[in-house]
Amino acid sequence: MGPIGVFDSGVGGITVLKALKATFPQENFLYLGDTARLPYGTKSPKTVFRYLTQNVEYLKQYDVKAVVVACNSASSVLCPHHTFGVPVYGVIQPGANAAFAKTRTGRIGILGTRTTVQSQVYVKALKNLDPDLFTIQQACPLLVPLVEEGWENDSITTEIIVKYLEEMKQQNIDTLILGCTHYPVVKETIQKVMGEHVQLIDSADAIAEDLANDIAQGFLTFRPEHGGRIDVLATDDGAFFHHIASKLMNPFSINSWEMADLRQVPEKRLYEDI
Amino acid sequence: MGPIGVFDSGVGGITVLKALKATFPQENFLYLGDTARLPYGTKSPKTVFRYLTQNVEYLKQYDVKAVVVACNSASSVLCPHHTFGVPVYGVIQPGANAAFAKTRTGRIGILGTRTTVQSQVYVKALKNLDPDLFTIQQACPLLVPLVEEGWENDSITTEIIVKYLEEMKQQNIDTLILGCTHYPVVKETIQKVMGEHVQLIDSADAIAEDLANDIAQGFLTFRPEHGGRIDVLATDDGAFFHHIASKLMNPFSINSWEMADLRQVPEKRLYEDI
Repeated sequence: MGPIGVFDSGVGGITVLKALKATFPQENFLYLGDTARLPYGTKSPKTVFRYLTQNVEYLKQYDVKAVVVACNSASSVLCPHHTFGVPVYGVIQPGANAAFAKTRTGRIGILGTRTTVQSQVYVKALKNLDPDLFTIQQACPLLVPLVEEGWENDSITTEIIVKYLEEMKQQNIDTLILGCTHYPVVKETIQKVMGEHVQLIDSADAIAEDLANDIAQGFLTFRPEHGGRIDVLATDDGAFFHHIASKLMNPFSINSWEMADLRQVPEKRLYEDI
Repeated sequence: MGPIGVFDSGVGGITVLKALKATFPQENFLYLGDTARLPYGTKSPKTVFRYLTQNVEYLKQYDVKAVVVACNSASSVLCPHHTFGVPVYGVIQPGANAAFAKTRTGRIGILGTRTTVQSQVYVKALKNLDPDLFTIQQACPLLVPLVEEGWENDSITTEIIVKYLEEMKQQNIDTLILGCTHYPVVKETIQKVMGEHVQLIDSADAIAEDLANDIAQGFLTFRPEHGGRIDVLATDDGAFFHHIASKLMNPFSINSWEMADLRQVPEKRLYEDI
């Protein structure tokens, strides 16, 4: 049986891949970064759903046993009634569950891209768990390009985070969902700005737990003898993507890099021996 | 005969459309914003060339008499030997010509996206005009998302511009090419940071002059009786695009908005009466 597929619009989902690798060190993973069309977070739900479907179909050609949608914006357009012929895991529900489990006061904040915030997908998932929860959202469109620029430790990034969190700080929340895979990269600054009493929820950890539960319950087969390969596909060519992905994946290393043309059937050179 | 086609990855090319409209008020323009795949400036030349070709082919279905590539990143992959069956104008050569005409000291700076800077396309165009010109480039990837966030007047944007221009300020240039259609939106801040002695070159004005020359020389037909329509197509659906595009186009107004699916033949509902 094939690897676990993971996809994101770009490099951010590598934080999810890393959490999965840490949880399932012997599993094979095939990562697809749709770098030719990134970012998803500023695009319409209709367009994002079209991209999601294409990515899942492409990964299925590698006999993936499951697909993890590491992108919050893409997960936000995923509905329970969609069937893809392979189990597809989004990051929203695990993130909402983790926030609900952690909150003491029932006051939860959500940071996300414009698409994720407008979809209200975290708010709906949280209200389903308990309609009395208080929620507040903030779109942070500049955090993605700042991380991709490699400015995560720059004072300008801190200033932008302070500006984005200004209103949220007044709302006395005790739990904050990092609703975009890029945000864990600036987790420490967000923690400092919000204060130590606010618990940050990283969807990367939440999704890894979700998969571990499904494996424990027998819904998903885990094949520890596979060998722990990490193969990365990207729809655009770019040394910068390799550089940032390798940096985020550290200390784990990536076994192979390949270009993916979503309009063509892949050559399936990976996993020939499985 | 059809309109003049103008395309950009997103909303930035509206600054070019506005300059064209001001120069040719009676001409019809059809603008295509490839918002489903923006930005181009972080993607590889190969991918950007594929997008460019698709956009030109799509616009040709509306019988455009010429296509203006309003995007610097897309213009940077355009070579003189490419033929598209319709005249295609890029912004690089007009920008380089304008800078060469304006410089007194022969020291020229270039601001652009990562793709444009890496391609060295402005440097090559300038050195072709005079190999002794001194050039210095700076990639400014954050300016596009800042403009698209509507933060052009925020002090954070000024800080980021100061940081980007730090090295260039030491180089004693007298002319600076704004090598991305988003940059004219923050022109005043760039002017303030560089000082009044530095002349800024806006490719929007330069390309309008280029077309006017070709019309004057009979290479391009200008039909003033057309009626001055401005129709806008976008590959993604988004109220935000409409909002920013209308703001940038002011005081001119846009006659129609439509979604474009590049995989399909357009319905050609525009210009039925021409």
